[in-house]
Amino acid sequence: MMTEHQAASSGLAGYGDKALNLLQSSGIAVGDHIRMEAGPTYEGILMPRYEGGMGDRIVIKLGSGYNVSIGADEITHMTKMQGAEVLVKSPPIARRVAGLPRVLLLSTGGTISSSIDYRTGAVRPAMTPEELNAGVPELSDIAEIETRVIFSEYSENIRPLHWMKVARVLDGMAGSRYDGIIIAHGTDTIQYTASYLSFALAGFPIPIALVGSQRSSDRPSSDAATNLIAACRFVTRSRKEGVYVVMHHNESDDEIACHMATRVRKSHTSKRGAFKTIGGDPAFLVSGEHIHNNMQKSFFSGSAYEPGIVLEEKVGLIKYHPGYDYKLLDHMIDSGYKGVIFEGTGLGHIGDAMYESVDRAYKKGIFMGMTSQCIDGRVRMTVYESGRDLLNLGIIPLENILPETALVKAMWVLGRHSNYNTIRRIMLDEIASEFGGLQ
Amino acid sequence: MMTEHQAASSGLAGYGDKALNLLQSSGIAVGDHIRMEAGPTYEGILMPRYEGGMGDRIVIKLGSGYNVSIGADEITHMTKMQGAEVLVKSPPIARRVAGLPRVLLLSTGGTISSSIDYRTGAVRPAMTPEELNAGVPELSDIAEIETRVIFSEYSENIRPLHWMKVARVLDGMAGSRYDGIIIAHGTDTIQYTASYLSFALAGFPIPIALVGSQRSSDRPSSDAATNLIAACRFVTRSRKEGVYVVMHHNESDDEIACHMATRVRKSHTSKRGAFKTIGGDPAFLVSGEHIHNNMQKSFFSGSAYEPGIVLEEKVGLIKYHPGYDYKLLDHMIDSGYKGVIFEGTGLGHIGDAMYESVDRAYKKGIFMGMTSQCIDGRVRMTVYESGRDLLNLGIIPLENILPETALVKAMWVLGRHSNYNTIRRIMLDEIASEFGGLQ
Repeated sequence: MMTEHQAASSGLAGYGDKALNLLQSSGIAVGDHIRMEAGPTYEGILMPRYEGGMGDRIVIKLGSGYNVSIGADEITHMTKMQGAEVLVKSPPIARRVAGLPRVLLLSTGGTISSSIDYRTGAVRPAMTPEELNAGVPELSDIAEIETRVIFSEYSENIRPLHWMKVARVLDGMAGSRYDGIIIAHGTDTIQYTASYLSFALAGFPIPIALVGSQRSSDRPSSDAATNLIAACRFVTRSRKEGVYVVMHHNESDDEIACHMATRVRKSHTSKRGAFKTIGGDPAFLVSGEHIHNNMQKSFFSGSAYEPGIVLEEKVGLIKYHPGYDYKLLDHMIDSGYKGVIFEGTGLGHIGDAMYESVDRAYKKGIFMGMTSQCIDGRVRMTVYESGRDLLNLGIIPLENILPETALVKAMWVLGRHSNYNTIRRIMLDEIASEFGGLQ
Repeated sequence: MMTEHQAASSGLAGYGDKALNLLQSSGIAVGDHIRMEAGPTYEGILMPRYEGGMGDRIVIKLGSGYNVSIGADEITHMTKMQGAEVLVKSPPIARRVAGLPRVLLLSTGGTISSSIDYRTGAVRPAMTPEELNAGVPELSDIAEIETRVIFSEYSENIRPLHWMKVARVLDGMAGSRYDGIIIAHGTDTIQYTASYLSFALAGFPIPIALVGSQRSSDRPSSDAATNLIAACRFVTRSRKEGVYVVMHHNESDDEIACHMATRVRKSHTSKRGAFKTIGGDPAFLVSGEHIHNNMQKSFFSGSAYEPGIVLEEKVGLIKYHPGYDYKLLDHMIDSGYKGVIFEGTGLGHIGDAMYESVDRAYKKGIFMGMTSQCIDGRVRMTVYESGRDLLNLGIIPLENILPETALVKAMWVLGRHSNYNTIRRIMLDEIASEFGGLQ
C-alpha cells in the first residue's frame, strides 16, 4: 500500500485504492507515458484525478488530446513506456515588469484552468503564477498577475453553492488594488455563473472577465492562451465595469469577443467561436492590441456596488413542448417551488392544458415568468388570445431576457425578496444588461 | 336568447352565452366593426371564436392587425360602428386550369390558416378553395388545389393527439392522386408536428410541406401568401419526398426556405425569417420559379412507406442547468415515464448530483438520451470524465439530433417498442434526416 505522502508526491492523490495499487505496482506516476490493456489497448499520459471524480478509474490523455478513463477492474495489464521526467520543461522565471496594471486571476476548473500546465502534457486542475507564465508568457507584459484557485470543478458540476463561493471571494476584492479580475471557468455553464455574478455583484467597481477554452492547451488548435491574453488586455485597458464572457469570436485567432454575461449563450458544442451574444454583437471585440467597443450603455444600470449573494434554489425552468405534462408543474407547486421560468413557444405561449396548474401556482404566490425557446426576439403576450389568457393567469412576460438568465435572475431575486410585487418589479427592472444594454 | 341557427349564420357559433347575449343585444355579427368600452375603449372588427377557446371573451381585430380578447363581464358598453356587409368583396371565381398538378391543402389553424380570408378583414380559422383563390390567386396557376380543415388550433395548444389526427388523414392519402400535400400550421410548434410526421409517416411517397406565417395576411408585411406559393411550387416541382417546413429564408420576400422537418427550429419570436436549419443550409431555396437544391441524400433513409402513428406521451425533456433538482427526475421515474431526453450542457453533460437518479432510471429500464442545449454541434460524451461517467450510467449520446426532435422521436419509438436494445438501436438509426441528411 502506498503511503499518503507517496501518493501525493507521485501525483496519484486523487486515485482510489484499486487504481492506486495497480499504478503503484507498475511504478507509474502522473505524467508517465503508459500503455493499458482493457480489451482494447490504450496508450497515453497518466492524468491526475480530480476531487469528486470516480477514483477507481484510471485516466490517460491520448495522443489525440482527448482523455479516456478506464475502470481499474477492466485493466488486465499496464506498462510504463516513458517517465514523466523526460517531458518536463522548466518553466521560465516569471518576469515582473514594474508599473503594470494588476490583475487577479481566479481559477474554478474547466478546460481553461487545466490547460495551463505544460509540465507533463497532463491536464491539471490548478495553476500557479509560474505555471501560468510558462504557458502564456505574453501575460506578464500586459499585467502583474496574481492567481488563486477557488475550486476545481468541471463546470457541468458547478452548482449555485459554487456561484456563491466565487461571489464571496470577489466581494472581498471590491475595494482592492486590482484593476480587473479574470475567472477561469469551464465553458459548459460559464454563462450561468457569469449571469449570477452580474446580479449578485451589481455595481462591482472593476471589470470581471470569465474566460474559458473549448480546446485544451495541448491541442494545436487551443484557444486557451489567446482567450486569456485578450481577457487580460480587456480588463486592464477598457476599464469598463461589468461582467463579461471572453471567448473566440469565430474560428480565427485574431478576434476575441467580450460578451455581456447576461446576453451570451454557448451555441455550439465544440467550435472555438461557440459563444454568441443573442440579439446583437458582442459588447467588445479584442483584435490584437485594439479593443473595439459596441457598448453604448453601462453594464450595470444602478450606480453603487451592493452585493446580494444569497439565492433561492427552488426555481424551476420549464421548457414547454407539445405533450408537456402539467403534472410536472403540479409537482413543483407541491414541492414548495418559489418560482418558475417558462421557456414557452413563439411569442411566449404554453398550451391550454397548462392553464389550471398555472392558475394554482399563481394562487400559491409562485412567481411565473415567460421567456421564449426561440431564444432570439422578444416575448409579446398581447398578440394572440393564448398569450392574453396566460397574462390573465398571472404569468409575467420577461421581454427579451434569455431563458437561462431569467432562471438565474429569478433565483437571485427570490433569494432576497418575498413580496410578489417587489419580485415582479425587480424581474422587469434592468439590473445588469439582461434586456440588451447595447443601445 | 339567440337560436343555434342564428348564432351560426351570424358567425357567432363559438361564443358562450354571456358573450352571445351581449353581441346579439347590440345586433352585432362577425365581421362588424365595433366599439367596446371596458375601462379602455377598443375598436376593431369582431372575430369568430375558435373551438376550445374561452367562449365568454369577445375577440376583435384592432387596426394594428393584432387581436385582443376582452371578458364579456368587463364590457360596459358595445356599439356597432359599421356592418360587415360593406367590407365584403366577392371572391373571384376559382379558375381551374386543366392538366395542372394536384395538391391537397390541409388546415390545422394558426396565423396562416386564419389569414386566407379577405372577406371580412377578420381572422377566420377555416378556408375553402374559393377563399384561398381570393386570397392567393397565384396558386391556381401552379396547381389544382383541394382543401380540407382537419382542426383549427393555435399551435401552442396542439398536442400529440392532434399530431396523430393529422397523420391519420395523411396516411389515407398515401395512395392518392395528389402530387403533394401542404399543411397550414401555426408556427409556434410547427417543428414538433413536422418532426413527428417525419417519423410516423417514414417513406411517405409524396412531398409534405408544412407552411406557417409569422404575420397575418391583413398586415402589409404578411408572409402568408409568399410562403404558400413557394410551398406549392416546391411540392409540385421538386417531387422530393420528405417532410419540410416552408417559411421565409430571411426578411426578403424573394427567397423562401424549405427546411428538413427534423432539423429546423424557430429561432426568432417575430421575424419572418425566423426558422433556421441547424447545422447547415435549408434543404431547398425557392426563389420565384427557381428551386435551388442543397439536399444530396433522400429525406427518408428507408425505402418502403410504413406508417407508425401511435406514440408514447410519457417522455420527458429535461433542460439541465446548475441547481437543477434531481428530485424532478425522481418524480418522472416514479410517475411511470418511459423515456427522458436530456438537453445537457456543452458536449452532453449533466451535473454529478444527478448520477444517483440517472442510475435509478436506467435500472428501471427508462430510455435516456443526451442532446445539447448548445443546439448546434454534436454531443461527444467520451471527451471528458463527466461524459464517460454518464455513458457508464446508461445515457445514450444522440449525436447532433436537435433536443426537440429527439423528444418527438423518443415518443414515437417508445410508442411502438418496449425492448431496450431495439429502442436504443432505432434512436441511433437515421429515419428521417434527423442527424443531418445534407451530405
